[in-house]
Amino acid sequence: MIERIAILGTGLLGTSAGMALRAAGFRGSIIGWNRSPEGAQTALAAGAIDSIATNPLQAARESQIVLLAVPIYSTLDWMEKLSGVLGSDHLVTDVGSTKAQICAAAARLFNTPERAAFLPGHPMAGKERGGAALADGSLFRGAVWLFTDDPAAQRSPHAAALVKSWREWVAAMGAKPLDLDPGRHDELVAWVSHLPQFVATALSALLQNEVGEAPELKDVGGRALREMTRLGASPYSMWRDIAMTNTEAVQAALQALEQRLAHLRENLRTPELRDEFEQANRFRKE
Amino acid sequence: MIERIAILGTGLLGTSAGMALRAAGFRGSIIGWNRSPEGAQTALAAGAIDSIATNPLQAARESQIVLLAVPIYSTLDWMEKLSGVLGSDHLVTDVGSTKAQICAAAARLFNTPERAAFLPGHPMAGKERGGAALADGSLFRGAVWLFTDDPAAQRSPHAAALVKSWREWVAAMGAKPLDLDPGRHDELVAWVSHLPQFVATALSALLQNEVGEAPELKDVGGRALREMTRLGASPYSMWRDIAMTNTEAVQAALQALEQRLAHLRENLRTPELRDEFEQANRFRKE
Repeated sequence: MIERIAILGTGLLGTSAGMALRAAGFRGSIIGWNRSPEGAQTALAAGAIDSIATNPLQAARESQIVLLAVPIYSTLDWMEKLSGVLGSDHLVTDVGSTKAQICAAAARLFNTPERAAFLPGHPMAGKERGGAALADGSLFRGAVWLFTDDPAAQRSPHAAALVKSWREWVAAMGAKPLDLDPGRHDELVAWVSHLPQFVATALSALLQNEVGEAPELKDVGGRALREMTRLGASPYSMWRDIAMTNTEAVQAALQALEQRLAHLRENLRTPELRDEFEQANRFRKE
Repeated sequence: MIERIAILGTGLLGTSAGMALRAAGFRGSIIGWNRSPEGAQTALAAGAIDSIATNPLQAARESQIVLLAVPIYSTLDWMEKLSGVLGSDHLVTDVGSTKAQICAAAARLFNTPERAAFLPGHPMAGKERGGAALADGSLFRGAVWLFTDDPAAQRSPHAAALVKSWREWVAAMGAKPLDLDPGRHDELVAWVSHLPQFVATALSALLQNEVGEAPELKDVGGRALREMTRLGASPYSMWRDIAMTNTEAVQAALQALEQRLAHLRENLRTPELRDEFEQANRFRKE
């Protein structure tokens, strides 16, 4: 049913999605666009897209599905632009890491009888560095792909069919679709995604101050240190939008962790430390 | 020169050391002892040791090198026992994660002309779960093996030769020997090893409270969450001794991280966030 997909933003996620669609057997055409021409060329060379759009709005109009794979504020900008040029025979979906603002924009700009459908999506996959050059067709294998599905997106049989088809492709890429309410989504990812990132950033920044001038000392930490700071390489450019659009939930998570660390610090020599380790062990119980 | 090594404690590190010595070509005999007989049997079956000691003190007396691979307080107990029964033809070394108390005990109990030599060691390798069953002959490959070498250990040519030989075997196991002052060691590992562990414990314990009752939500976090909480599985039994013997340095590191997290939390919507990300990026610069 889907003959043409437009991927706007051929960075790590957009390019990986194109490669994963091909690997899953998608035979239609995939047209791509990227702010930097180099990223689009890399995606083309990787076989993630068949052609590079010179006019992204026209490419979107000529596709049944438009995948927005850009940072959150860029996603919001594209939603404004696309709303005016697409009609009821299109489905727009995205990969943004926070969903409250995107869902609010979708309710305002999409999902009316004469407008395109919008399905908010969020694949829980990525790398600590972005860009088409690091794309990987198996990036979504085993990963959860969250949808904060506005039921209005399925108001027409045609929209419902497009949504169903995209969900099937997501599953075919190896991801596990999971539906959440947008508010619950943003709260949950603050705990399981944003908090781990900001902890890795704070830990890496702190260690850069403490031992950064003695590179041989970084080796001392071994695998544990490498793992706990890998996300320290994540770029501000991506996380700025997340911090701006999920501020309260991230603040609450950070404050809770600060309190937990203080509690642990005050109990290094008391039996309370055992309780903390046992509670942590429970989280990692297979 | 070394014909016989006694490994007291055939848990993860002791058993891995026996396997690594064999893989590196050690042809002498290796006798092992473990508090639980099952751990010794597993080490024997894995080829890490040739025989199980029924009398560990006698096994130590009959070996040139005694490797203590037990938790810190057990190491201190063994040092007391071994000091009385070993003589100047023995070298005792250990794998303890903190060194100030062990070095103080070594100065008191070893390294006199009539007593055995003691070389304090600390391989920066491990897993989040212990035990002989998880042992791996390549565990030390590429890892730093710290020594907080009391020069007194080399006071006699014989002691110096034993120390040199053990250091050569450590290198042959694939590890990178590095010498540090004991106080500097404990301060450094508080930053690069103990802090990452306690952060993972606090994060895992917190997340168990927040999302632990909904196991499907753990999947949502993906690789980043798995990495940042892998050490949450580490046992209290091992970390208790570290918390007790390096309390002040760990407290200072935890407090510094709490302050860093608070700073980040207060700046989620300011340009200061960029500085934190850039500082973190520097730590991960290849």
